[in-house]
Amino acid sequence: MAKRALVSVSDKAGVVEFCNSLVKNGYEIISTGGTYKKLVESGIKAIEIDEVTKFPECFEGRVKTLNPYVHGGILHRRDKQSHLDQAKELGVESIDLVCVNLYPFKETIERTDDFDDIIENIDIGGPAMVRSAAKNFDSVIIVTNVADYDEVIDAIENEKNTKEFRRGYMIKAYEHTAAYDSMIANYMNERFNGGFGEKQFVVGNKVMDTRYGENPHQKGALYEFDKHYSNNFTTLKGEASFNNLNDLSGAVKIASAFGDENAVCITKHGNPCGFAIKDTLLEAYEEALKCDPVSAFGGVVSVNGIVNKELAEKMNEIFLEVVIAGRITLEAQEVFAKKKRIKLFEMGSDKLVLANDKKDFKHIDGGFVYQDADKVGADEVKNAKLVSKIAAQAQDMKDLEIAYKVASLTKSNCVVYVKNSAMVAVGMGMTSRVDASQCALKKAKEMGLDVTGAALASEAFFPFRDSIDAAAAAGVKNVIEPGGSIRDEEIIDAANEFGMSLYFSEVRHFLH
Amino acid sequence: MAKRALVSVSDKAGVVEFCNSLVKNGYEIISTGGTYKKLVESGIKAIEIDEVTKFPECFEGRVKTLNPYVHGGILHRRDKQSHLDQAKELGVESIDLVCVNLYPFKETIERTDDFDDIIENIDIGGPAMVRSAAKNFDSVIIVTNVADYDEVIDAIENEKNTKEFRRGYMIKAYEHTAAYDSMIANYMNERFNGGFGEKQFVVGNKVMDTRYGENPHQKGALYEFDKHYSNNFTTLKGEASFNNLNDLSGAVKIASAFGDENAVCITKHGNPCGFAIKDTLLEAYEEALKCDPVSAFGGVVSVNGIVNKELAEKMNEIFLEVVIAGRITLEAQEVFAKKKRIKLFEMGSDKLVLANDKKDFKHIDGGFVYQDADKVGADEVKNAKLVSKIAAQAQDMKDLEIAYKVASLTKSNCVVYVKNSAMVAVGMGMTSRVDASQCALKKAKEMGLDVTGAALASEAFFPFRDSIDAAAAAGVKNVIEPGGSIRDEEIIDAANEFGMSLYFSEVRHFLH
Repeated sequence: MAKRALVSVSDKAGVVEFCNSLVKNGYEIISTGGTYKKLVESGIKAIEIDEVTKFPECFEGRVKTLNPYVHGGILHRRDKQSHLDQAKELGVESIDLVCVNLYPFKETIERTDDFDDIIENIDIGGPAMVRSAAKNFDSVIIVTNVADYDEVIDAIENEKNTKEFRRGYMIKAYEHTAAYDSMIANYMNERFNGGFGEKQFVVGNKVMDTRYGENPHQKGALYEFDKHYSNNFTTLKGEASFNNLNDLSGAVKIASAFGDENAVCITKHGNPCGFAIKDTLLEAYEEALKCDPVSAFGGVVSVNGIVNKELAEKMNEIFLEVVIAGRITLEAQEVFAKKKRIKLFEMGSDKLVLANDKKDFKHIDGGFVYQDADKVGADEVKNAKLVSKIAAQAQDMKDLEIAYKVASLTKSNCVVYVKNSAMVAVGMGMTSRVDASQCALKKAKEMGLDVTGAALASEAFFPFRDSIDAAAAAGVKNVIEPGGSIRDEEIIDAANEFGMSLYFSEVRHFLH
Repeated sequence: MAKRALVSVSDKAGVVEFCNSLVKNGYEIISTGGTYKKLVESGIKAIEIDEVTKFPECFEGRVKTLNPYVHGGILHRRDKQSHLDQAKELGVESIDLVCVNLYPFKETIERTDDFDDIIENIDIGGPAMVRSAAKNFDSVIIVTNVADYDEVIDAIENEKNTKEFRRGYMIKAYEHTAAYDSMIANYMNERFNGGFGEKQFVVGNKVMDTRYGENPHQKGALYEFDKHYSNNFTTLKGEASFNNLNDLSGAVKIASAFGDENAVCITKHGNPCGFAIKDTLLEAYEEALKCDPVSAFGGVVSVNGIVNKELAEKMNEIFLEVVIAGRITLEAQEVFAKKKRIKLFEMGSDKLVLANDKKDFKHIDGGFVYQDADKVGADEVKNAKLVSKIAAQAQDMKDLEIAYKVASLTKSNCVVYVKNSAMVAVGMGMTSRVDASQCALKKAKEMGLDVTGAALASEAFFPFRDSIDAAAAAGVKNVIEPGGSIRDEEIIDAANEFGMSLYFSEVRHFLH
């Protein structure tokens, strides 16, 4: 007896070729509405769905395939005589392959806010067939992705249509329906519950397995939303590790936080140990490196622009583990080729590209905390409140802005000192703010860096004047912080005492 | 005309009472299989599903409700004359309420590994009805949760069955089907793809909205897997903030890492600034506090046991933001009541309780990295390789173990110094390991803590001998680290030079 395939697709790319191949391999095609029309126009003999269902398509297409002849044809067990007998008795004929992709809910919500239109684009019959066919993968192939057509035909033609093969497609099918309903639930919660519904679905598509996780005994993988990594992340050399990917995320955020400026950031363990904006990327890298060349060893460098030969040669003077840039020229790649261990990634764009996720989350034991993403507002530094007697000079405002933005992207508690658009000291990730301040200044001294005239930013308020005292002793001129401590007056007094400017942004940027 | 409700539930709790109320409110009940039987036995007049479907239930229940009379009855638009006319013409009668809960896939996978059994417990008809009814929430109430029965009856009886009301249930319905298929997909990927399938679904149930996120301008919420927080997290005083929850996770992991021992951990920004194991929790707290009483200010204290009055009084001497414990006695709560800002949480158990998630993930720009969770193995310290000439004395092994485990739960790069089962110094979250070492020792000196004879652990290898030199100068006697640096020999030489013991665990525990 001929095998039968039910084909009902929203995305019609490749469907004619696929069905032609199915027919060649002895399948009869059952089809619905638009798919049927397209197949018949293309000269493929297909059975219209209502011949199978013995019921008309109704309610403007809302009910087509939700029918026992369809689902019985898919779901009955071929290994049980009782099922086969019942199928015969009821006139239910086998369906051996189901090819379905769903109404384009995602495209619809991207296209319109019209709620009726959106609701109409929630597919009901499609997921039901996908789930039926997946459940009975023992006997049925379920195809949900245009990209799989060739593999399926190959399996049919070359005796590879095994249970294991179909099991792989079963898993894809439940992934497909799970992702579809997750998208619907998240959309509804975004629209009606401010993005914080009773259930939250974080769904990722695998980009790659990493060699291992945070440590060699852990398995790991990178998952993306939409296509951020598929579209913007090309590996030119080496292989991104789990920890690299984490570091890269932070490094790219910092280097791309200043629009099109020539910014270079060096990070280690997700925190910046060097940052500068200069007229050229080469200068920016050279200045960034000065902040902490010891930590830079084995670090991740993010370059908001194109790495050319000259910059590559400079970078090659020390061991860097990772370089990511908008682009890395072929000449630069040749330079790097001499270094065995360096890893190179580019975004295929003149500048670094951010995904700019609107939400953020962290795994904690037994669950996760979920939140709106943090981002420094465009005018936060410009609109910060001057609380000291003296204001910063116009030419120092940029250092304040850089310090403030870098601090917002550095692990709490942190302090960032910037001079002439280059970070000259940074303290981070410590349980005490004054410890962070003092460690930073101590380090700067060891590095021979002159902090005189620098701007200082803290991502959260200074709880005591001690950090201001330490900053003044080191020659810091301008300070920006959120303010909000019960000792703000003491801190303002300290700034005035030392003739420093002090700004309160009134926005905290903890990052843990 | 009477309204009709389709009731088909796997969990039959409360269904009789619910249907009784529906009948009282003029609903006819349509029902299936086991639900029908139960209703009729309870004296409720119900219509059997095949009266509606005009088709027998078949294939051992695999096909019951996948039928145009059911789905047409649910899905046709009551606001369109053409739909109403077509319904009449086809003999499709309205279904106005759908009450469905799904085959217990979760309970099945917890109960058995038998794959046939598991596959049979993938519900097909149920999700199709749930999704149909949700799509047509304009006219249909979709009830998927036993806990909602009373609210639904109340809405029907008291004119609260509005479109907004039904919209809320629509969202729940898609959350329900999304969670169901996410669970199936994750299960299949766990079983056949080592937990790292092509799609990864992280699904949480909301425990609570937090007042805000990591910062006041961000909204935030806590989501749990299973019921970890619902079951093990009781708020006795105050309200857990987003950052508290993050800190609590780290604090609880550290304090519960030593079985039933009387361990107390003080954390700030997710990192420990105090830790001790002593004969009593009071002593443990006192010792933990000595490590860094400055950072402890406003900190999170996790107590692996019961906080009594005496301990509460001791804690009350400084400002602590959060205390979490197995239990906090009523007397202790009274003591804490005097402090306005302290927040108290208990787990309702004699000791702290961990969820022990098997997987871990981190949000990065545009996606997330996903991995097996890290945990120090039971024998890692015991089986660590002695690489120095001198071994640690038996009584010092416990300090090595404590230092090693705490280091595995402290942000990289970190070093932890432990003496007499109490942490005496800690460096963390820094881009350079030797900086972490030096900052830790400097702090210990300032605190007047004597590091002589302490054990030192590092969560990753020492890249140079400098940290060993610094440790030796401070009097450290025993060291444990993973080993694996190209300069291991230098480090071993350094240990031998200073007469220290040195162990290599050969397992790294980076934590970022």
